[in-house]
Amino acid sequence: MDDFNQAEFEARLERAQTAMRKDNIDALFFSTEAEVRYFTGFRTLFWQSPTRPWYLILPQKGDPITIIPGIGAELMGKTWVQDIRTWSSPHPSDDGVSLLCQALKSYARVGMPMGEEGSLRMPLLDFEKVRASCVVEFVDCTPIVKSLRMIKSSAEVDIIRQICEIGSIAFLRADDLFHCGQPLDEVFRTFKIALLQAGAEDVPYLVGAAGNGGYGDVISPPTNQPLMDGDVLMLDTGATLQGYFCDFDRNFAIGQVQDAAKFTYEKLWRATEVGLSHARAGMSCSALFQAMHNALGGGNSDVGRYGHGLGMQLTEWPSICTHDETVLEPGMVMTLEPSMVISEGKMMVHEENILITEDAPLLLTKRAASELPVL
Amino acid sequence: MDDFNQAEFEARLERAQTAMRKDNIDALFFSTEAEVRYFTGFRTLFWQSPTRPWYLILPQKGDPITIIPGIGAELMGKTWVQDIRTWSSPHPSDDGVSLLCQALKSYARVGMPMGEEGSLRMPLLDFEKVRASCVVEFVDCTPIVKSLRMIKSSAEVDIIRQICEIGSIAFLRADDLFHCGQPLDEVFRTFKIALLQAGAEDVPYLVGAAGNGGYGDVISPPTNQPLMDGDVLMLDTGATLQGYFCDFDRNFAIGQVQDAAKFTYEKLWRATEVGLSHARAGMSCSALFQAMHNALGGGNSDVGRYGHGLGMQLTEWPSICTHDETVLEPGMVMTLEPSMVISEGKMMVHEENILITEDAPLLLTKRAASELPVL
Repeated sequence: MDDFNQAEFEARLERAQTAMRKDNIDALFFSTEAEVRYFTGFRTLFWQSPTRPWYLILPQKGDPITIIPGIGAELMGKTWVQDIRTWSSPHPSDDGVSLLCQALKSYARVGMPMGEEGSLRMPLLDFEKVRASCVVEFVDCTPIVKSLRMIKSSAEVDIIRQICEIGSIAFLRADDLFHCGQPLDEVFRTFKIALLQAGAEDVPYLVGAAGNGGYGDVISPPTNQPLMDGDVLMLDTGATLQGYFCDFDRNFAIGQVQDAAKFTYEKLWRATEVGLSHARAGMSCSALFQAMHNALGGGNSDVGRYGHGLGMQLTEWPSICTHDETVLEPGMVMTLEPSMVISEGKMMVHEENILITEDAPLLLTKRAASELPVL
Repeated sequence: MDDFNQAEFEARLERAQTAMRKDNIDALFFSTEAEVRYFTGFRTLFWQSPTRPWYLILPQKGDPITIIPGIGAELMGKTWVQDIRTWSSPHPSDDGVSLLCQALKSYARVGMPMGEEGSLRMPLLDFEKVRASCVVEFVDCTPIVKSLRMIKSSAEVDIIRQICEIGSIAFLRADDLFHCGQPLDEVFRTFKIALLQAGAEDVPYLVGAAGNGGYGDVISPPTNQPLMDGDVLMLDTGATLQGYFCDFDRNFAIGQVQDAAKFTYEKLWRATEVGLSHARAGMSCSALFQAMHNALGGGNSDVGRYGHGLGMQLTEWPSICTHDETVLEPGMVMTLEPSMVISEGKMMVHEENILITEDAPLLLTKRAASELPVL
């Protein structure tokens, strides 16, 4: 497990411990994939099995403690973590709960993610058992996790830059890959293979749509409907490398371009330019949203935001929306993702990935063409 | 969204409602992907974004209620669900909570998954808000969900059978795909492409390992270590079709077979034969475990079980382990997955997928060779 060197993990832990001291928190407790991986380097697709819980405790002083099923001991042993406590899981009557209580009982105030974008990846009954049997106050540590994970290290940025390049290279083959008459599910399958061939490790996320002069929604799996003359095809990919995502889309007109699609595309492209000229350290997400929203002429869609953070997860904090007052900082990796309704049931989206700096952002994706490409 | 016809969803709801009446539960409440999809047909990879919560309520009488972000309204509109309540998400101050409370407040006793294999895919603070503001008793409904989802309909079995065939076809190409000197990460990438080419929709899960005469753990991502003469290569794939998984592995010796690997393979193969001869309606999971365990001569590994349910998730209830007294029923789709330690840090696993019937189980995968194949 050499995604990062040990100094990277020590720095992450140190930042967490500094925040814990400031907030008077004795330890942080995690049950979710991204957080366990972020602090330990433990990377496996095995989280897709809901059977077994995995726990991590970061004390305010000292080293991380992992409490994990025996099946993960060997892999965890390859990370920088020394304190690995295991049990034979699945175990219906005590699936790690007593080990967890034993580890938590020495703390008074324990932070865990309870807020926005959070979830609890363990049985609620087990969590309530822990809460009942340990004299521990659980408090929300979302702001701590958010403040750490939002700012990417240069090692993280390097990986994200690589996967964005891989995605861009795959999209450059669009002319060869996609054609009129091709069923949409074949388009998806072909593009997944192209992403893997270009060097992606995985393609956990590929959504998209095609429709005459625009498309209706942007989160659907594909049907076998063939691409038709006058369609706009959109593919939005979250391919990964070493567990880090790119997340951007591209639009293509099939055969011919209709005026409304052409103009909408150009509006979205220009709104992205506005985003690129505004997105830098010191700008708030809400102000960035407003600048892009003005560029679109106030059009609206159901997406609810014009971009978001990006990294170990397809979407991360912050959100580029009216509600989010997060101030951009160097090291944030973001998507710019304006969307616009053309007419009832017809919309378009446009997306790039960027690195926030003190000056103009660094484009991680190869910028989309300024005019809707025709295949 | 035509993965299943409407009668399939009506039957699922009716079975849930019958169970609710029996347990005196007024409604079921879900926040997790598999359950929302199981009852609505709403299938999207968009769940990978942790940003937005998605809620489903099944009343004891009447139709399903979905409370979802606006971005999902169009796709949910293509399912059989009529009652679709939306808000513009993400919304930091009220991310669906008031809509949820409004819908839940008319019930006294609400079931939600709180037990084994469960998780809460919503911010804990939001759940606590709901619990505080609705006068609702939340009770565990894991047994209900488990009893429903464990028994696959013939339409579900058809899809799983197809993806198992696709996986089997891809593995048949092993001789062409894998070779001595090939880095393991290239082996993985090549096999993902082969699965897609064979007709898989996605390959959300591929783990594996290679090592001299056996491998150390079975949940790791690949390194770039090349395959070497005398290695045993194991690939374990969870490819999907219409959101349903296969989950099985194959072992290959590279160049030559070492005796210990050869004998361990044959032991695992025979233990699987024992599993195949015992796995049928009426047999308990624990008795099936014991039969396979005896066939292995009591050898042990860290996996903790010899198989599990399979379907919309890579692993589902029940578990073939000493603790699980679930009695097998026709319609259960299971893996048989014995594993064995060869020596310190060296193990092997073997896995097939089957459909439980009144008689001998139906093999869904093409049975692995009885001797370790050499590439």
